[in-house]
Amino acid sequence: MRANEGCVGSYGDDAMSQTLNARFSEVFGAEVRVFPIMTGTAANSLALSALVAPYGAVLCDQSAHISNDEGGAPEFFMHGAKLVTLPSADGRMIPEALRTGLRANAQGGILKPPIQALSLTQATEWGTVYALKDLAALCSIAHEHDIPVHLDGSRLSNAIAHLGCTPAEATWKTGVDVLSFGGTKCGAMAAEAVVFFVNDRTRPALKDFERRIKRSGHLWSKARFLSAQLLALLENDLWLKNSAHANAMAQRIVESLRRHAGAQLPFETQGNEVFVILPDRLVAELEAAGYAFYRWPTPEGVSGTLIRLVTSFYTREEDVEALLAEIAA
Amino acid sequence: MRANEGCVGSYGDDAMSQTLNARFSEVFGAEVRVFPIMTGTAANSLALSALVAPYGAVLCDQSAHISNDEGGAPEFFMHGAKLVTLPSADGRMIPEALRTGLRANAQGGILKPPIQALSLTQATEWGTVYALKDLAALCSIAHEHDIPVHLDGSRLSNAIAHLGCTPAEATWKTGVDVLSFGGTKCGAMAAEAVVFFVNDRTRPALKDFERRIKRSGHLWSKARFLSAQLLALLENDLWLKNSAHANAMAQRIVESLRRHAGAQLPFETQGNEVFVILPDRLVAELEAAGYAFYRWPTPEGVSGTLIRLVTSFYTREEDVEALLAEIAA
Amino acid sequence: MRANEGCVGSYGDDAMSQTLNARFSEVFGAEVRVFPIMTGTAANSLALSALVAPYGAVLCDQSAHISNDEGGAPEFFMHGAKLVTLPSADGRMIPEALRTGLRANAQGGILKPPIQALSLTQATEWGTVYALKDLAALCSIAHEHDIPVHLDGSRLSNAIAHLGCTPAEATWKTGVDVLSFGGTKCGAMAAEAVVFFVNDRTRPALKDFERRIKRSGHLWSKARFLSAQLLALLENDLWLKNSAHANAMAQRIVESLRRHAGAQLPFETQGNEVFVILPDRLVAELEAAGYAFYRWPTPEGVSGTLIRLVTSFYTREEDVEALLAEIAA
Amino acid sequence: MRANEGCVGSYGDDAMSQTLNARFSEVFGAEVRVFPIMTGTAANSLALSALVAPYGAVLCDQSAHISNDEGGAPEFFMHGAKLVTLPSADGRMIPEALRTGLRANAQGGILKPPIQALSLTQATEWGTVYALKDLAALCSIAHEHDIPVHLDGSRLSNAIAHLGCTPAEATWKTGVDVLSFGGTKCGAMAAEAVVFFVNDRTRPALKDFERRIKRSGHLWSKARFLSAQLLALLENDLWLKNSAHANAMAQRIVESLRRHAGAQLPFETQGNEVFVILPDRLVAELEAAGYAFYRWPTPEGVSGTLIRLVTSFYTREEDVEALLAEIAA
Repeated sequence: MRANEGCVGSYGDDAMSQTLNARFSEVFGAEVRVFPIMTGTAANSLALSALVAPYGAVLCDQSAHISNDEGGAPEFFMHGAKLVTLPSADGRMIPEALRTGLRANAQGGILKPPIQALSLTQATEWGTVYALKDLAALCSIAHEHDIPVHLDGSRLSNAIAHLGCTPAEATWKTGVDVLSFGGTKCGAMAAEAVVFFVNDRTRPALKDFERRIKRSGHLWSKARFLSAQLLALLENDLWLKNSAHANAMAQRIVESLRRHAGAQLPFETQGNEVFVILPDRLVAELEAAGYAFYRWPTPEGVSGTLIRLVTSFYTREEDVEALLAEIAA
Repeated sequence: MRANEGCVGSYGDDAMSQTLNARFSEVFGAEVRVFPIMTGTAANSLALSALVAPYGAVLCDQSAHISNDEGGAPEFFMHGAKLVTLPSADGRMIPEALRTGLRANAQGGILKPPIQALSLTQATEWGTVYALKDLAALCSIAHEHDIPVHLDGSRLSNAIAHLGCTPAEATWKTGVDVLSFGGTKCGAMAAEAVVFFVNDRTRPALKDFERRIKRSGHLWSKARFLSAQLLALLENDLWLKNSAHANAMAQRIVESLRRHAGAQLPFETQGNEVFVILPDRLVAELEAAGYAFYRWPTPEGVSGTLIRLVTSFYTREEDVEALLAEIAA
Repeated sequence: MRANEGCVGSYGDDAMSQTLNARFSEVFGAEVRVFPIMTGTAANSLALSALVAPYGAVLCDQSAHISNDEGGAPEFFMHGAKLVTLPSADGRMIPEALRTGLRANAQGGILKPPIQALSLTQATEWGTVYALKDLAALCSIAHEHDIPVHLDGSRLSNAIAHLGCTPAEATWKTGVDVLSFGGTKCGAMAAEAVVFFVNDRTRPALKDFERRIKRSGHLWSKARFLSAQLLALLENDLWLKNSAHANAMAQRIVESLRRHAGAQLPFETQGNEVFVILPDRLVAELEAAGYAFYRWPTPEGVSGTLIRLVTSFYTREEDVEALLAEIAA
Repeated sequence: MRANEGCVGSYGDDAMSQTLNARFSEVFGAEVRVFPIMTGTAANSLALSALVAPYGAVLCDQSAHISNDEGGAPEFFMHGAKLVTLPSADGRMIPEALRTGLRANAQGGILKPPIQALSLTQATEWGTVYALKDLAALCSIAHEHDIPVHLDGSRLSNAIAHLGCTPAEATWKTGVDVLSFGGTKCGAMAAEAVVFFVNDRTRPALKDFERRIKRSGHLWSKARFLSAQLLALLENDLWLKNSAHANAMAQRIVESLRRHAGAQLPFETQGNEVFVILPDRLVAELEAAGYAFYRWPTPEGVSGTLIRLVTSFYTREEDVEALLAEIAA
């Protein structure tokens, strides 16, 4: 409501938008350049398009959102540059696999688009969280190869809440060069941001980044309505508090499911996502009782139905307890 | 605020979003398919990308926003398809020029990207408004050549308010096939829409249109916040009332400037834009008094400074009078 | 030399070029449209770009040339459409894997680029050849899903020579819709072709295909020099005779290597490619003797060096015997 | 025939291809990097794609081949970057117009794709030739703005023959940074080249240029057949001798037409192209006699038919005389 008051400049020429760089620099403890973007898909894709030439490639985990869930947006924004994926057990890339992937790519010579960015996801798509030293190991390998690191931080707040670290430790101190800052999942109406940590690896990408935003139709004329959301999330650590609540709700679910004989938990729950394999019949009964689930392909050789339970700032304890009681019954 | 209540489905699976097709069909008196989009640049570019192959072309006026002011977005969304421009005196394309342009393109054979869409702008970039019969003549030529018509309706509400016609008459009854519906300029925070009038020319473009939206990062997860804005604009004709006010303010400015010896008005003001050439010294004095203007290149052989004055739903009469008094003084 | 005589029309308006459609239709026993192209990468990429929308995807084997060895060309020509790969043991896609891949893609809904073409390779990248009934099974699954089939036929002549079938049986009778016809590997200077078997699945792709060729800079003004090469290959089955010779040379190598204790042959050799794992020391000795090899990553857990030996129309028996003698010694 | 002898390395790893850089450096009297390409459209488009970001723009004359006659190839290779055209009387860009164009572009700020290359054509599309000092003036303006200059030299040999200058004077000494070297029009089967004059403006474009060639399907495996053509053209100045002959034939035509009452010559003929407006009836009679012409749109207010007569290395004096006699009769 405050953002709606008065008549202000457009395209970021307003008081709120103009504090963004300073505010994010303060929160992250480093010089950053912030570009508010309304969707995570656009934030990821824009960030990568500034790092990678159309004839290049991005290395990422096989579970990455950019590879599986963005309808080809990264390829569109990057003008056909390729996503090269590496296998992992739980969404966390393995340093040795990264070295092998980079080597295989280089050996391909002119026949393979060269890797020009590493994209990691924290918390991962499977709800796991990288330990900071593991993330640092990956970033370090990338940097050895002169490759900048992009972090899909759609759930960064959940990871920070889980790790109990600072935003700085979770990002640039570990080697992250460009961050897709997630705001929508932790409370915003529609507000993400591309955050560049200013260094020699990001400087070329910063040049003309606003042109890329404009060219993809992502530049709001009334930018203050986007900035206001981001500022509100940062105020009194609201983004982290909201995510801590979501994490706690997920832990409550996990604790209960662990005691349930029929439930299998294929991954550690460290953020706000619980993946659980339940007996087909139980899932059917829950659905009959009014619940709706997003189903995942069940791993081969396993019986039951793999569902994902996602908690949020808005998940109420009573709703969680009701579901758990229903499962237990 | 109402849109923020409760827990609803995402990506358009909410009550508000699900009424959009019906509501717009009612307002436009025809079967339409509506896709909410947050910026006009994205709405135009997405619409055209669904009509034109990457090896094709769009015909538009040389003043068109898509050609001059969108940072290359149409070319990006259309994967390099070409914008072919035609000259006009005041932003209104001339039927004979359209025929000539289509003929020259066809004669080029394989050497020229084929024209696959006609894009018109109403109200135009110079603040003029097509008479409906002139618009119909252009649409009719396009249809003779099996070419669909896109209307950049960023200021459609101003045109409708000026013409005193119905939304139906302003669009599909005149031959428009796809509309970029402008909401931001007439009051929304950030809400435009691509509106397809369902017919044989638009049906192929409708297929997979939502995939194009997702792929460009323009699909909101919390879609209701976008839908709510559009519904509010349509309620009690708010979009048209807001635009009528803006038009009236522009007319007030024009009336006053017409009586000013030093002012030249190169175009008719029919919507919410006044283009006026003022003596350089006057402009300097107004700036010294605190006004800020967007300057246009002054036509050759004319002395003075060409500025654009844009009015809106938010333009107050007292502010207009203050400016006019300052000019008169 | 004959093509160089006299003054003829350009861009295909010459006597040689104008017989191509009829000549290929005769050879393939079906109505075809032929577009001469100078490289296999361009032929594959152009063919796929005509079948797949920029927001779509192609399904192919993980060993496919389009996925691994074309420097991102298919993604460039398809404007960022995605290559989705399926695993296989020896380059021959497994029907069940195809069904699973199509199902997983469809379940992704709007989040996954839709599969709009199946691309198969015959002979495969590992030198194996699909039995016609297996190829037919794959084509049939694709057609059930309304998906056209592209065949990378860079080594089609080797496959036909191996199978002893007709060009018709090897292609459209088995379900192939569009063929990249390989000429360079079986004798041409630089001449491939995109061959469309005219049917309902290919008709939309045929429209404007020549525009795609022009737009990618692949339209020769002196087209006869390209056409002449293709016609020469078809004359008296030269393409097939050349490939039969290449196959025979490869078989000679395989027979000898099978008797060599230190050699492992990971794949059946059915065309003109022999993949063999030799002891590291032997490879080093051969290199010292003046041979040069293209090395492949050796499969995990296997010792030795995986090399590829490719034979051609130009491979002389004495050279093969000399190599085999050197290995035996 | 010589290139066909023996068994050599592929993709440029052959004796002929490996002399190209040295040979062209010698001919142009400067350090160059040469990339053989089979068509002029591809050479132009590849060169520009290495200079201009997808969100950028190229400035060129309104008559430029890249803008009018390449089926949208530059936009394809540049991933949607824009061609901004400037008007001129005869295909030769006017320095003042260039300054104005650059200024207008810069004033557009983020709304206009930034100009990142200047593309000039020598000889121009209208058969005129820039004086070297005029070309130098344009290059100098571009360089002042940190913009590299590309020269479409499809007819460079005709311009050099006309100017009587050295290849060095015609290119880098005048300020050209990257050249599309034309070979096909002056004798080759299909051989053009992108020639980079190595300097600070071209160095970034040189990086990975071969990847761009591969990615667009323009990398020949049997590269020697392309290199051989280029080397043959350079031998004993064959390219220049061929073009001098073509120019002389064009001059012969012009001299005769100047004396013909009904003929109007709208442009100076300085290369191998004669544009002439003939009475409609005369054109019809010539066509009845078996001649075929490429017709151009006749300028407004002029009666008659505008045709283009192009001479080449292969144009015989007796054929020219026969045509002129027919016209005179």
